[in-house]
Amino acid sequence: MTDKLWGGRFTGKAAEWVDEFGASIPFDYKLAAEDIEGSLAHSKMLGKQGILSQDEVDQIQKGLLEIEQELNDGELKFSIANEDIHLNIESILTKKIGAVAGKLHTARSRNDQVATDFHLWMKHRLPRVLNELTELQKTLVSLADQNADVIMPGYTHLQHAQPITYGHYLLAYFEMFQRDYERFEFNRKHTDILPLGAAALAGTTFPIDQQFVAEELGFDKIYHNSLDAVSDRDFALEFLSNASILMMHLSRMAEELILWGTYEFNYIELDDTFSTGSSIMPQKKNADFAELVRGKTGRVYGGLMGLLTTMKAIPLAYNKDMQEDKEAAFDVMDTILASINVFNGMLATLTVHKERMSTATENDFSNATELADYLASKGIPFRQAHAIVGELVLKGIQTQTTLTQMPLAELKQASAQIEDDVYEVLKSKVAVERRTSIGGTAISNVKKEVERDYKIIANR
Amino acid sequence: MTDKLWGGRFTGKAAEWVDEFGASIPFDYKLAAEDIEGSLAHSKMLGKQGILSQDEVDQIQKGLLEIEQELNDGELKFSIANEDIHLNIESILTKKIGAVAGKLHTARSRNDQVATDFHLWMKHRLPRVLNELTELQKTLVSLADQNADVIMPGYTHLQHAQPITYGHYLLAYFEMFQRDYERFEFNRKHTDILPLGAAALAGTTFPIDQQFVAEELGFDKIYHNSLDAVSDRDFALEFLSNASILMMHLSRMAEELILWGTYEFNYIELDDTFSTGSSIMPQKKNADFAELVRGKTGRVYGGLMGLLTTMKAIPLAYNKDMQEDKEAAFDVMDTILASINVFNGMLATLTVHKERMSTATENDFSNATELADYLASKGIPFRQAHAIVGELVLKGIQTQTTLTQMPLAELKQASAQIEDDVYEVLKSKVAVERRTSIGGTAISNVKKEVERDYKIIANR
Amino acid sequence: MTDKLWGGRFTGKAAEWVDEFGASIPFDYKLAAEDIEGSLAHSKMLGKQGILSQDEVDQIQKGLLEIEQELNDGELKFSIANEDIHLNIESILTKKIGAVAGKLHTARSRNDQVATDFHLWMKHRLPRVLNELTELQKTLVSLADQNADVIMPGYTHLQHAQPITYGHYLLAYFEMFQRDYERFEFNRKHTDILPLGAAALAGTTFPIDQQFVAEELGFDKIYHNSLDAVSDRDFALEFLSNASILMMHLSRMAEELILWGTYEFNYIELDDTFSTGSSIMPQKKNADFAELVRGKTGRVYGGLMGLLTTMKAIPLAYNKDMQEDKEAAFDVMDTILASINVFNGMLATLTVHKERMSTATENDFSNATELADYLASKGIPFRQAHAIVGELVLKGIQTQTTLTQMPLAELKQASAQIEDDVYEVLKSKVAVERRTSIGGTAISNVKKEVERDYKIIANR
Amino acid sequence: MTDKLWGGRFTGKAAEWVDEFGASIPFDYKLAAEDIEGSLAHSKMLGKQGILSQDEVDQIQKGLLEIEQELNDGELKFSIANEDIHLNIESILTKKIGAVAGKLHTARSRNDQVATDFHLWMKHRLPRVLNELTELQKTLVSLADQNADVIMPGYTHLQHAQPITYGHYLLAYFEMFQRDYERFEFNRKHTDILPLGAAALAGTTFPIDQQFVAEELGFDKIYHNSLDAVSDRDFALEFLSNASILMMHLSRMAEELILWGTYEFNYIELDDTFSTGSSIMPQKKNADFAELVRGKTGRVYGGLMGLLTTMKAIPLAYNKDMQEDKEAAFDVMDTILASINVFNGMLATLTVHKERMSTATENDFSNATELADYLASKGIPFRQAHAIVGELVLKGIQTQTTLTQMPLAELKQASAQIEDDVYEVLKSKVAVERRTSIGGTAISNVKKEVERDYKIIANR
Repeated sequence: MTDKLWGGRFTGKAAEWVDEFGASIPFDYKLAAEDIEGSLAHSKMLGKQGILSQDEVDQIQKGLLEIEQELNDGELKFSIANEDIHLNIESILTKKIGAVAGKLHTARSRNDQVATDFHLWMKHRLPRVLNELTELQKTLVSLADQNADVIMPGYTHLQHAQPITYGHYLLAYFEMFQRDYERFEFNRKHTDILPLGAAALAGTTFPIDQQFVAEELGFDKIYHNSLDAVSDRDFALEFLSNASILMMHLSRMAEELILWGTYEFNYIELDDTFSTGSSIMPQKKNADFAELVRGKTGRVYGGLMGLLTTMKAIPLAYNKDMQEDKEAAFDVMDTILASINVFNGMLATLTVHKERMSTATENDFSNATELADYLASKGIPFRQAHAIVGELVLKGIQTQTTLTQMPLAELKQASAQIEDDVYEVLKSKVAVERRTSIGGTAISNVKKEVERDYKIIANR
Repeated sequence: MTDKLWGGRFTGKAAEWVDEFGASIPFDYKLAAEDIEGSLAHSKMLGKQGILSQDEVDQIQKGLLEIEQELNDGELKFSIANEDIHLNIESILTKKIGAVAGKLHTARSRNDQVATDFHLWMKHRLPRVLNELTELQKTLVSLADQNADVIMPGYTHLQHAQPITYGHYLLAYFEMFQRDYERFEFNRKHTDILPLGAAALAGTTFPIDQQFVAEELGFDKIYHNSLDAVSDRDFALEFLSNASILMMHLSRMAEELILWGTYEFNYIELDDTFSTGSSIMPQKKNADFAELVRGKTGRVYGGLMGLLTTMKAIPLAYNKDMQEDKEAAFDVMDTILASINVFNGMLATLTVHKERMSTATENDFSNATELADYLASKGIPFRQAHAIVGELVLKGIQTQTTLTQMPLAELKQASAQIEDDVYEVLKSKVAVERRTSIGGTAISNVKKEVERDYKIIANR
Repeated sequence: MTDKLWGGRFTGKAAEWVDEFGASIPFDYKLAAEDIEGSLAHSKMLGKQGILSQDEVDQIQKGLLEIEQELNDGELKFSIANEDIHLNIESILTKKIGAVAGKLHTARSRNDQVATDFHLWMKHRLPRVLNELTELQKTLVSLADQNADVIMPGYTHLQHAQPITYGHYLLAYFEMFQRDYERFEFNRKHTDILPLGAAALAGTTFPIDQQFVAEELGFDKIYHNSLDAVSDRDFALEFLSNASILMMHLSRMAEELILWGTYEFNYIELDDTFSTGSSIMPQKKNADFAELVRGKTGRVYGGLMGLLTTMKAIPLAYNKDMQEDKEAAFDVMDTILASINVFNGMLATLTVHKERMSTATENDFSNATELADYLASKGIPFRQAHAIVGELVLKGIQTQTTLTQMPLAELKQASAQIEDDVYEVLKSKVAVERRTSIGGTAISNVKKEVERDYKIIANR
Repeated sequence: MTDKLWGGRFTGKAAEWVDEFGASIPFDYKLAAEDIEGSLAHSKMLGKQGILSQDEVDQIQKGLLEIEQELNDGELKFSIANEDIHLNIESILTKKIGAVAGKLHTARSRNDQVATDFHLWMKHRLPRVLNELTELQKTLVSLADQNADVIMPGYTHLQHAQPITYGHYLLAYFEMFQRDYERFEFNRKHTDILPLGAAALAGTTFPIDQQFVAEELGFDKIYHNSLDAVSDRDFALEFLSNASILMMHLSRMAEELILWGTYEFNYIELDDTFSTGSSIMPQKKNADFAELVRGKTGRVYGGLMGLLTTMKAIPLAYNKDMQEDKEAAFDVMDTILASINVFNGMLATLTVHKERMSTATENDFSNATELADYLASKGIPFRQAHAIVGELVLKGIQTQTTLTQMPLAELKQASAQIEDDVYEVLKSKVAVERRTSIGGTAISNVKKEVERDYKIIANR
């Protein structure tokens, strides 16, 4: 016969490797603190409701607090034979206080218990994500403040498109992380719900007080349907989905930092503390951390896809498939917290080659739009203006002459409406200054947005 | 030389199949209405700001309205040679009103134009999703109302666990769709932002009025960073992610409807109008629509994974990769609207075999927890109670006797604390009635939740 | 200054948490045996070619063999500060034999070293996968042999379709695993190629002998392009893809085992050693292992999607993103080996309720096709035959009469061509026996296939 | 009552939108040719076996050939009411030849019919994929031949690593596409199996001749298990997986072509015929097609993930979920054929800026490895050599001096073992020439590999 805590009706005993395959303790030990926290609240409530005697509750609480201390001291040992964190803690408690430990499981099941642990775990960590995002946003806005007037080429299709400022560029990411922030904040809504009391699937017949437990644990709401309470993993999927979008944002910036640090672009230099070398090529200084974050995008997407797949088409309520819900969440949490931090560090310490950035806008044709707009503002239909400038650019490429270098006479040949004031219009800085539409790259705009963004952060 | 609208600097011309590969008109024609809508607002603003003359604006508006009419009449023809919906509409407009059509593109780029179209498209359709979800939720709550007391086995691991009611089961899905509803509502937040004015990437030098355009088009907010405005697809990713979670929910219910309609379960019978037959087996009546929705879960997950992958690591701002953003969104929108509808129809029309459901709870051991709880309430530690009942169940299985069929003497052998009142406790209906914890399956609870859910819907 | 092995040109030193983020030793320690194996072969070759002196080689080999012994004895300790398995081993070697350890890295780079380790790791494990698959196939064919004549309902759309045999069912999975086997065998082709010698990316100037190293390590081929050698991870993607398809197969069988073990189907009972109980419901006996494998399908798909995403659009040759290649492969390898084993165990030990299976085919309409085929064989177009039988079935459902129970007169009303011989045709066993087309469910067929499958396995 | 071909037992009729949701004809019309091809072979066999009379077969064949002609003439019209391609063709046939058309469905089901169509479809198209890959490989090897000696920087981490040649670079992709080729070739093995004869799921009672049908249709093998025959989609998953890996390869090259075409790299210029412009910025010349292929990588990954998800955990044999198998395969086939072609065209027509490429290797430190190897070859442990050179590089960066520009005295300060012969060693071309290890970038190697690759192609 099996010696499992649930083994009453069983006559055979699984082989060790089978037990190992089924056990979740190799990863759900990470829920130990939350499991104890939940049990403390649960047992307190059982006492308050008279379901357990005060003496029983006292023993249980004392035992649990000892276990908590051992956990904090790194002295707790778990065993595969006890399958999961819940049965491990219960087994340790039994060793400490005897059979009364068995009363702790009154009016609950592992199904609502694990759901509670997992909700608590997420509930404790979402604020960390929000906090790290805030730190990263602070760095971005502060750098944007300092670099509001640093001219650089703006790119589309990785081709020089129009001049922008480095500050403007940084604020684009401020906006993305702002949406990430809002998504993780929304994520709390569906995390902050207490499943305890749903028991196995149908609720419990004991006169429990879920409101009390919710307050003890700091939960906002209680699940209104017990089947849903034990089988809902939306909060984890929301988290994985939000993390995927966040990593997508980081991967885009990673791509740019890597590019900008090349020999060819040479717009930035990463600090030595955020670069690594090569075991064979002594000259190498690689943007390893940016690359690693870009690579880890796959890992996070994989976590999302994994849990979506696992949850597909499994009937209500709990199924063992759902044991697969935690590892991806644990891993993705570590991954995004570290990735945000790494970016914060990289951005704060990198050197910007401002001169090189701004020079890059003066030897190219990124002012071609200025000329087209100039012509359009003189009444030429934009499409025609575009065509005129396009041909000038072609000529310029063939003769290696920029628009600024072309004499007025030559420009006038293309369109009689071009006057001497055009050369001012063609300057990168002027092009930037004039883009004052909302969200435009004008230095004055960037400064205004910086003020707004400081306030957004201050109001958190 | 190419005859493209952007072709000024080009000397070669692409082969037709290359053009075809690059063209988006085969799918972005679906944005025609939004493209015209955006152009109407944009040109009106250009007039108001004096960027175009009133006469020019009048011509453009008249032309656009004619095109809109032709679109509604199904008479509009698009061509691959004009690449995308924007250049197609502009080319049609040029045929109608001549070169002045070229002035419409003043102060905008295809980059902010396509972003505006796509935002508008999503903005118009999210309310439909919310509406269909509301209809489905109405059906669920109304059926739960009618079936609040229909006893059936509750399952975990697809094994009879504890008796619940069909009404309780239905409300579990009400809760899931409620979270879906909240997610799609949140989705509007990041959809309802106007990108127009960002132009190619950096804003525009023309004195545009974005606030005016936002009001014309009903947008809540305006992008605060032009680079972000043209390269943000978060709203589409949020949509695909929300749709994936929704499909996961539907796939779970699909699985159950399919199961319940089998010869073996026989709990429900789908209406003929939501079933199909076999080309070879005359007796077949298949839950084809439930299966199809379950299968389409893959399609929707694939759409999410596709766009996440596409957006990974592409530098700011617009890149052609982003042309791949629309097809998945279009397809997923159609898929979820139809899938929700199909479920609404299936649920509303299926026949419930109530007798069979409730009988199923009486010939099994799904009342074992009742006995364990009974013992626990008499002071036996739950773990010990669990073991006692486990052995009784094993004996019952071996002798084909349910707990209710066991004489008191036999029960007392297992535990002296079992009294005659146990038989009442073992009844399915009693088991259900007693689960009055918040979210528990008690009939009274289900009725209470039904009231609450009616109000939730009424308050929308 | 950093004290890294590659740190010559670096002046700053990374914070510990940054180092930790970048380090791969927390997972690539699993390559320790392969790393040593590769270094033994590499250093032997360096000696043979006179690049190192025999004395140097002897010292290095002695050191490496000592490290290998410590690894086997579980005494090897790795440190985060040394980043990865390669630098860890080198650092340990340096402690043992001094500066000469630095000569081991002559004519190689970590780029070709890690590729070699990973190829070796996969090369050593693919045969295990093949072997486990063979064991599972053996169980299937042996069970099919024993159950060639056990009649059960065959399902489509989870509805009774036509009677089949349990043996036939089992052989369907034999075929799937056969294709899996062939895929993992093909996987060896692109695994069995030696990257060593590619050095960082471009090959080496030292007069190395790659053929010798390939023979030492048992590789079939050598990469013909050094850029490809260090940046190719196709073999890992093939593995993850093959594993995904395998898990899909297992998930289908898992679904069926779970279904068949329900109260409602009751076709099988899993052995106690492959089932688990509930912490709250004493009667529960859950197909936890089948559910877990079904759930782990998501994990494996996620691993595939993760690496595909990571590898997307990274330029040649090595990038740090590629450090993300290993964890998924390690995890998926463990997952599939255990999953195959679990299925092998479950199948071999479960009890089949043969009577119940075969009875299920006699109280339904799964013989309707027999009647349609009977009519078609008398010259009635199949479509018409199908319609006639469809109406008989409808009548049967309404009157709760099976086709066999209908008197001949009633059948003749539907079609005059029905004669008394029809009742023989309608028997499940006859229906099965008559399906002798290649691959058909006839008992004689199943026996023939069993013979063929025994041979397939014997010929490996 | 429904008027469906399978409707005998049905009394209700679905709403039109429900029919539409369930119908596959909007996409499976693409199987029309294969459906007719299969029916021609099937009916011929029915005649040969005496299951149908020769006269019946003649009518059916005549009707089918007419339909085939109409299909080729683009005159065939399909209807949603007839659900799928099979019932559409049958319905058209019935209109042509009357009730005898109903006999065509003798001894088959839509389950084996659709499987046959899909296998045939794939079987017809895999050779096209192989052919397009061959054409692309031809272009690569021919360009490598011409560019065997064009020196350029080799990159790792997107940093200059060591000099290589453009020819060597091109051959890296030859190798990748070679593996792709081998995978698609292997894909044929599991495609080239005939499912017809499996009927609905269990085989048929009619005396069919599957060998005859296989020969008619050119199939290599016949499924050995009927359940497997109708529910196997491995061949489609293999295809999607192979296509995903292929797209990953293309996305890497796409990334490089985009990079190399930037203002900053300026290594190549795409031909006008494979570039596009901007609607607003007249100077733009974008690598749209490379970007689009990179973007479409997501689409293809999504297709793979979609079908894997769809197939997860569906019980044997056919389920309607599997209707979702085709669209992704259709779309991915079009996508990869076009993507390969686009790359072939882009590569063949782009201009290489050879001077710029080779100059880039002379003003950097990509020869640092040469110096380290030089020291190592003089007996200094590689690790120590690496450190010495690292410090020289640091000094060089600080003083803006390359290694070649440093006077011998300065070099000797770093290591007394450096002699005058070092300057020869530091030349890019020499560095390239000396990398003669198998797969190394030496020009002589590239030429040798070109010869080998020509032969590989010639032997197809």
